[in-house]
Amino acid sequence: MSELLDKFKAYLAETTNLGYASTLLYWDLETSMPKEGFKGHSDALAYLSTESFKRSTSAEMGEFLDKLSAPEEFDSLDADWKYIVKQMKKNYDENKRVPADFYHDFIVAENEAGVAWQDAKAKNDFSIFAPHLEKMIDFSKKMMGYMRPDMEIYDAMLDSYEEGMDSATYDRVFNELKEGLLPLLNKILAAKPYDESKFKKEYDIPAQKAVEKFLLEYIGFSFDKGCTGETEHPFTLNFNSKDVRVSNHFRTDNAVDPMFSAIHEGGHAIFEQNVAERLDDTVAGSCHYLGLHESQSRFYENVLGRNINFWKPIYAKLQEIDPDFKDITIDEFYRYINSVKNSLIRTQADEVTYCLHVIVRYEIEQEIFRNNVPVSELPALWNKKMEEYLHITPPTDSVGILQDMHWSDGSFGYFPTYLLGTIYDGMFLEAVEKDLGSIDTVLAEGRIKDITKWLNEHIHQYGSSRKPKEVIQAVCGREVSAQPILKYFTEKYTKIYNL
Amino acid sequence: MSELLDKFKAYLAETTNLGYASTLLYWDLETSMPKEGFKGHSDALAYLSTESFKRSTSAEMGEFLDKLSAPEEFDSLDADWKYIVKQMKKNYDENKRVPADFYHDFIVAENEAGVAWQDAKAKNDFSIFAPHLEKMIDFSKKMMGYMRPDMEIYDAMLDSYEEGMDSATYDRVFNELKEGLLPLLNKILAAKPYDESKFKKEYDIPAQKAVEKFLLEYIGFSFDKGCTGETEHPFTLNFNSKDVRVSNHFRTDNAVDPMFSAIHEGGHAIFEQNVAERLDDTVAGSCHYLGLHESQSRFYENVLGRNINFWKPIYAKLQEIDPDFKDITIDEFYRYINSVKNSLIRTQADEVTYCLHVIVRYEIEQEIFRNNVPVSELPALWNKKMEEYLHITPPTDSVGILQDMHWSDGSFGYFPTYLLGTIYDGMFLEAVEKDLGSIDTVLAEGRIKDITKWLNEHIHQYGSSRKPKEVIQAVCGREVSAQPILKYFTEKYTKIYNL
Repeated sequence: MSELLDKFKAYLAETTNLGYASTLLYWDLETSMPKEGFKGHSDALAYLSTESFKRSTSAEMGEFLDKLSAPEEFDSLDADWKYIVKQMKKNYDENKRVPADFYHDFIVAENEAGVAWQDAKAKNDFSIFAPHLEKMIDFSKKMMGYMRPDMEIYDAMLDSYEEGMDSATYDRVFNELKEGLLPLLNKILAAKPYDESKFKKEYDIPAQKAVEKFLLEYIGFSFDKGCTGETEHPFTLNFNSKDVRVSNHFRTDNAVDPMFSAIHEGGHAIFEQNVAERLDDTVAGSCHYLGLHESQSRFYENVLGRNINFWKPIYAKLQEIDPDFKDITIDEFYRYINSVKNSLIRTQADEVTYCLHVIVRYEIEQEIFRNNVPVSELPALWNKKMEEYLHITPPTDSVGILQDMHWSDGSFGYFPTYLLGTIYDGMFLEAVEKDLGSIDTVLAEGRIKDITKWLNEHIHQYGSSRKPKEVIQAVCGREVSAQPILKYFTEKYTKIYNL
Repeated sequence: MSELLDKFKAYLAETTNLGYASTLLYWDLETSMPKEGFKGHSDALAYLSTESFKRSTSAEMGEFLDKLSAPEEFDSLDADWKYIVKQMKKNYDENKRVPADFYHDFIVAENEAGVAWQDAKAKNDFSIFAPHLEKMIDFSKKMMGYMRPDMEIYDAMLDSYEEGMDSATYDRVFNELKEGLLPLLNKILAAKPYDESKFKKEYDIPAQKAVEKFLLEYIGFSFDKGCTGETEHPFTLNFNSKDVRVSNHFRTDNAVDPMFSAIHEGGHAIFEQNVAERLDDTVAGSCHYLGLHESQSRFYENVLGRNINFWKPIYAKLQEIDPDFKDITIDEFYRYINSVKNSLIRTQADEVTYCLHVIVRYEIEQEIFRNNVPVSELPALWNKKMEEYLHITPPTDSVGILQDMHWSDGSFGYFPTYLLGTIYDGMFLEAVEKDLGSIDTVLAEGRIKDITKWLNEHIHQYGSSRKPKEVIQAVCGREVSAQPILKYFTEKYTKIYNL
């Protein structure tokens, strides 16, 4: 190994330590910090994040990357470090092109937009958010212009969340999915809805926590390499492959939601826990492709978790851990967790309508960035699309266009990755079944860890070192397509709703 | 305010942020970190602690302190900052006198001694620990020689944990206490012991956690300025007065221990939560006098918590939160929590015999540092003193001289502060009663927060800015004496044991 690479690794290790502390400050802020601890906490977080950012954009870092990118050094690197140096150089150059003043203004605008969004949502008044949304659109365009001057703006945005996936691909697979899904949804909505009244009761919270632990262990989450916490919104956070944490929320009126949050976050976490150890603390050591990441959480949550065979080997155990489920049969449970409804809120949607919630957002982002539709027209556009695809009109903007925070922080191009992950899932399901046989059988036999092992081997171990397109190609041997997930939806719901 | 002081405060703020992150890394390591996360965690902790230490011993820090100590600047400081600058200058100069090589060797020896101590304790073989103990004694002497060349070694050690308390004072009050306590203990041990069999059962853990929360709130711990965690050994940790955390341990075979751990750590935490806000993030903003700190935890745990009137207003509530206590009357509970036994382990001792456990250690430390008694003779000395004071001979060194880890990390002079805190408590009790009347009445009327308020006002708000002797003088108007706590013990246990 070259002396230069050794020195670079030592430099990275210090940056890793600063990042480690920032990550922990964030985790603690969400899970434990007492109310009045906020100032000390955020001061420390701001200081360490700034130190960490300074190092990642320092002249020293630039020199390391220049030298390591020069052919004589680069050629001597192994495949992992070739990826790492290339990726870091790309990030470094992109960040360096952003003027410091502009970056500062962007952060200020983002914070202001976040406050305005919360206010607008609380007061159900889009006009409070509108000028901030305009500014974030404008600033995000400029940001992409600095970072990626050679790319079309919205393509650049999509690419920044799912490298290598352009809008031509998104358009193709989303349209494919929409065309197949709309008629299926219409048939489902015409069928008899499931009566959920039996599930409306008061649930015990310690039992829910015990179920969370049981489910995480069951699907393959390692408690030697992770732990859980409680937060308002569930999320996954990773320090490195040895410490990956998931959070959850518990309420007395719903004990099923936290089960699926646990399985969903568990899927994200299993990905991160199984990235090859040698990539730890490098840019390859964590998956930063949001679509690919979401494919794993949704694979566990939906493809596996909403399959009746997932529950067959463990339903009696679930009833034992949480006696609130003693009077609910596995068949009732299965119907409940696959109840399809045209509802207003994305985060509460079932797996079928969820896709359309994302398509609404994707199409509106295109209108914004490709057709320059003014912000003032967006609420009406939102409602029109909701009516068209989901046959429901938001009674207020708070439960319509104001429901998600993403646009307030300039995360344009982020929503589509949620659906892309679902589309990947159809393809991964085919690939898993090709190797392991019907997942119905594997699950019914309680061998879910065989599936986890398969995913570890084919997807997780590579972290970010294989880009999504390369993963799809390697695992499925063809281009991304929406047909497999459409087939999954059609077969599953035709049966459930007797269509 | 002087420009220099402003600059100094800005410099300190950065150090505070690094320290904040280190503190959080430590808290998380104890409460949450998964097993395999250890390396990443300890790397980050080592890096940040080193950075923090570098800053606190930097040339820049030295310059600030020199300039601020010069009369023209010093005289313009307010009383708080006079204390802060003086204390920091003292610490800085002491640290600077320790050669870096020696400091490094000390840390290595300390780590090795810790491992050897664990091994020796597990294998019940003092000879494994003996050479390491010898080295730690030698290194600790040298360390004090560097840091405090003008002081007698053991006095310097005592002073480093409880500034201003010399061994003349310790000798006087410990002997006073011993003389009074030994005859009392002999009478108690001759009386009928309390039958504890009713308390031997299986306790529910979630109920214990609910009780912990209830008790902490009841005594005045603020959950807006603190939170709880679970660790093997309970402890208190503070970031600043706005974020003070206590940990506890829970087991199914004992639900009473965690109550008193909660009250004990709650006492430490209430101290830290109530230091004046203006002292936050300075050397005065946290109490670093161990005896004074322990006086507060033991005041809540013993003087208040083991008084039957503490429980009268809340015992029914306790039984409601934890139904495992439904069949135990308040009188049975009171007798159980004040059961005096001559047992082997300090940390499990009742409040009476606890004093003698500490005296054994204090007298052995004197033999080591004043009379150069060789390490090989210490186990026999330990057993002799246990027999003499407690009429019990440790069957093995593991439950004798090897039971505590303190000596393995060179914490000589630390144990005595535990007892000094208890002695302060007798004096504080007198002072509280002078102002508020009998604590029996205050407690029985559920007005424990009046006592907390009194302690906040007379002790807590000053943090470290008043030294223990000054606190005792200000609060009690006289020198420290063991008579008040002896009176407390004698009256209380004469009644309980019908002596």
